[in-house]
Amino acid sequence: MANFTLSELAEIVGGQVSGDADLTIDGVATLSTAGRSHIGFLSNPAYRKQLASTRAGAVIVEPREREHCPTNALLVSEPYNAYARIAALFQEKPAGERGIHPAAWVSGDAWIHESAWIGPNCSVEAGVRIEAGCHLGPGCFVGSGSLLGEGTRLVGNVSICHGVRIGSRCLIHPGAVVGSDGFGFAKEQEGWLKVPQMGGVVIGDDVEIGANTTIDRGALEDTVIGNGVKLDNQIQIAHNVQIGEHTVIAGCAGISGSTRIGKRCAIAGGVGIAGHLEIADDVTITAMSLVTRSIARSGVYSSGIPAQENGIWNRQVARLRRLERLAQRVGKPESNHRQKE
Amino acid sequence: MANFTLSELAEIVGGQVSGDADLTIDGVATLSTAGRSHIGFLSNPAYRKQLASTRAGAVIVEPREREHCPTNALLVSEPYNAYARIAALFQEKPAGERGIHPAAWVSGDAWIHESAWIGPNCSVEAGVRIEAGCHLGPGCFVGSGSLLGEGTRLVGNVSICHGVRIGSRCLIHPGAVVGSDGFGFAKEQEGWLKVPQMGGVVIGDDVEIGANTTIDRGALEDTVIGNGVKLDNQIQIAHNVQIGEHTVIAGCAGISGSTRIGKRCAIAGGVGIAGHLEIADDVTITAMSLVTRSIARSGVYSSGIPAQENGIWNRQVARLRRLERLAQRVGKPESNHRQKE
Amino acid sequence: MANFTLSELAEIVGGQVSGDADLTIDGVATLSTAGRSHIGFLSNPAYRKQLASTRAGAVIVEPREREHCPTNALLVSEPYNAYARIAALFQEKPAGERGIHPAAWVSGDAWIHESAWIGPNCSVEAGVRIEAGCHLGPGCFVGSGSLLGEGTRLVGNVSICHGVRIGSRCLIHPGAVVGSDGFGFAKEQEGWLKVPQMGGVVIGDDVEIGANTTIDRGALEDTVIGNGVKLDNQIQIAHNVQIGEHTVIAGCAGISGSTRIGKRCAIAGGVGIAGHLEIADDVTITAMSLVTRSIARSGVYSSGIPAQENGIWNRQVARLRRLERLAQRVGKPESNHRQKE
Repeated sequence: MANFTLSELAEIVGGQVSGDADLTIDGVATLSTAGRSHIGFLSNPAYRKQLASTRAGAVIVEPREREHCPTNALLVSEPYNAYARIAALFQEKPAGERGIHPAAWVSGDAWIHESAWIGPNCSVEAGVRIEAGCHLGPGCFVGSGSLLGEGTRLVGNVSICHGVRIGSRCLIHPGAVVGSDGFGFAKEQEGWLKVPQMGGVVIGDDVEIGANTTIDRGALEDTVIGNGVKLDNQIQIAHNVQIGEHTVIAGCAGISGSTRIGKRCAIAGGVGIAGHLEIADDVTITAMSLVTRSIARSGVYSSGIPAQENGIWNRQVARLRRLERLAQRVGKPESNHRQKE
Repeated sequence: MANFTLSELAEIVGGQVSGDADLTIDGVATLSTAGRSHIGFLSNPAYRKQLASTRAGAVIVEPREREHCPTNALLVSEPYNAYARIAALFQEKPAGERGIHPAAWVSGDAWIHESAWIGPNCSVEAGVRIEAGCHLGPGCFVGSGSLLGEGTRLVGNVSICHGVRIGSRCLIHPGAVVGSDGFGFAKEQEGWLKVPQMGGVVIGDDVEIGANTTIDRGALEDTVIGNGVKLDNQIQIAHNVQIGEHTVIAGCAGISGSTRIGKRCAIAGGVGIAGHLEIADDVTITAMSLVTRSIARSGVYSSGIPAQENGIWNRQVARLRRLERLAQRVGKPESNHRQKE
Repeated sequence: MANFTLSELAEIVGGQVSGDADLTIDGVATLSTAGRSHIGFLSNPAYRKQLASTRAGAVIVEPREREHCPTNALLVSEPYNAYARIAALFQEKPAGERGIHPAAWVSGDAWIHESAWIGPNCSVEAGVRIEAGCHLGPGCFVGSGSLLGEGTRLVGNVSICHGVRIGSRCLIHPGAVVGSDGFGFAKEQEGWLKVPQMGGVVIGDDVEIGANTTIDRGALEDTVIGNGVKLDNQIQIAHNVQIGEHTVIAGCAGISGSTRIGKRCAIAGGVGIAGHLEIADDVTITAMSLVTRSIARSGVYSSGIPAQENGIWNRQVARLRRLERLAQRVGKPESNHRQKE
């Protein structure tokens, strides 16, 4: 188990110790569950009550919270970021295997760096290139001609189709699919004619892709996910979508074909964005909103309606349906009686 | 093929035969497709018309429906429950294999009960414990240190990440992922810093998890799914969520991080629940509602709007957008002409 | 690389060349990226600007667009369909393997046509029948007794459970699950009793199933997907659903149990349809709508609300909540002052 003194931790995150600098810390924990050898953190003042009663050996806090901290403190300007760095020190590292598991199948025409790991029941097709430090957990497949940059990790049962380029230090969770065909069909007399999906997918560096998220390949050009993009679970990214750097998208959102999303956007859970739109940089879209037009300016956009008690809600929906009649009774401004009075 | 007389079935489910107690039944079927050797059921009076014309050898009905039943009847107070028990008698049982398939890979440091089955192309990592009667269909992986309780079944291509504890008699469908990283990042100057996800997932007994449902591991503590919870397909459960016993959640719902859901709740399809909320016991949430606040009392809650003909709907949305102006024309209660009259 | 003269392409799609019929074409491209040996297309007049500046060797256009085309033209009445056919000529064909990969496992009781391909890490159970020209990419499993018709392709990591019948020329993308249990439980004193899901799934010919889409097996009868149906990614189809021929469903939609959808319907992304409904033929449902009643007539139906700037939206929601009071102030038609005046 890893061990650090409080002063070592302070040095690592660039903070100040207030209290016993020699205290040994062997793990992170929440304020309410921490013991004497743990360090906790306070980043949200709402948890100040838990701070008062914590049994943690030390707590990461902003300097202004020092007075509320009943134990040793590690003072930093951004406690949550410092916590993230410290937690990483205590996190169990994957075993660091290298080589090809005997129960994996790798094409003779694939190139695998000697420091990479190909786990059991993986399949790696011809023309694939897997760089140094990559880790493929059990049951992944990588289709022909695809590339994985240095240190990229597929947790397990990940599907990378053919012709996909993935950058360095990406983390892709189980069940994610990258490079499935876009949804493109031409209307025929009877039924639909498939439009070949011949583009690829290009994924930048430091991208995280959640469990069971799907990213389709482009029709002719590539679907592009920028550096530092973070995608939660169960997200659908359609063909030819482009997502700018450092944008984050929460679970169950869906982005339709050819839409371009700017940099540093924050798209909440369950949002749907129609196709062929342009979303500016620094746009926030709140949960379960439906975006049907391009958004040219940074800001917060919404159309989700908070749930209410069912009887009240049903009356509101009924009222909404009769709004036309209500408006007619009130009349147009010009003929409005209040203006006549 | 299994065979039971009607009186044997009555004994099994605690019901009464009205008619030929010696009739042999060899299967279950719907009222409209059943033949002489089948038993059907009526649990919804809306199907009474089909009862009248059924060719079933027998029908499971409430006593008060006896008069409408044109054939032998098995009288019980809860026909759907009795049907479920009887159907299970006729269901083909999985082959009951035991052992480790030669095309599976199992770590030498995993413990597998001799009555468990590890199917082809499965991967079982070090420190895993798999109890009696477990069944892993093809292509599953179980990450290091995870536990599967007695009689738990993974249908195939299921991903169980490291450090996950699953109870007894659970059923997990293909593509489900348990233990993927929660979606946690701290904002940096540029981009996002990953917050290590160091908690686990604890799943109770008798839990069913649908196809392609995802359950993230906790950040520091565990994500917890209570006994008897039933999750449909394509559900997203974020980190640190807690779900109380016997709650059911329908397809495509999403529960955001750290939300706690009570016991015996019923959450319909496509519902989204924001993070850090508390939902009481016995709460029902109707389809495609968005829950943004905690719910303290049992009851039914909604915000889904039923679809209408598109032209009508567009006018309603336009009216909603002009509601501010309409309200201004009507004026505030104090200045309202009706009160002045 | 494939090569065709412009006149050969015209013959294949039944069009007319305007310009150099002997020009050699070796690929398709967008108007903005095409070079001299590429053919592009214009199907949407919005892209006429790109047509004006294209460097493509030839462009597929309607005859009436000939005058705007600065290069050789292939004149057809339906440019997008002609493009789809021509693109298919240039698409890289999968390698055309046949046989069983040494790293696959196939039951001795399965029947595999000699021209089919079973890829690495696939599992094929007893009683399975796989017809001529089928292609199973890496990591697929096919459960006992299931059938795959001629030329059907599972891209990789696809899960086909037991007792599923799939037609000819289907294409199923990674992570898709066909034949998982429907979500059926009977309420008990405490908790839920599983209702055995004993039906199957029947999928017609020329069906496409997107990545991570799930299709549950029927409870007693079959879930049925008609010929030519196209399903995008992350769609949930519940037990006993029937979908008519040539219907298309976009990503993240969910169809609840026992609902029957007609032929040639178009269901947009994120739509939810309640259970036990009947949707007529030729119905269009727009994005993120919630359908709670049967739809008897062809037409377009909606309940999705387009997002707006958050402050404006919040005021509209607040107004909606006070609509009851507003309506009371305006009064009922009979007592309305405007009628009295």
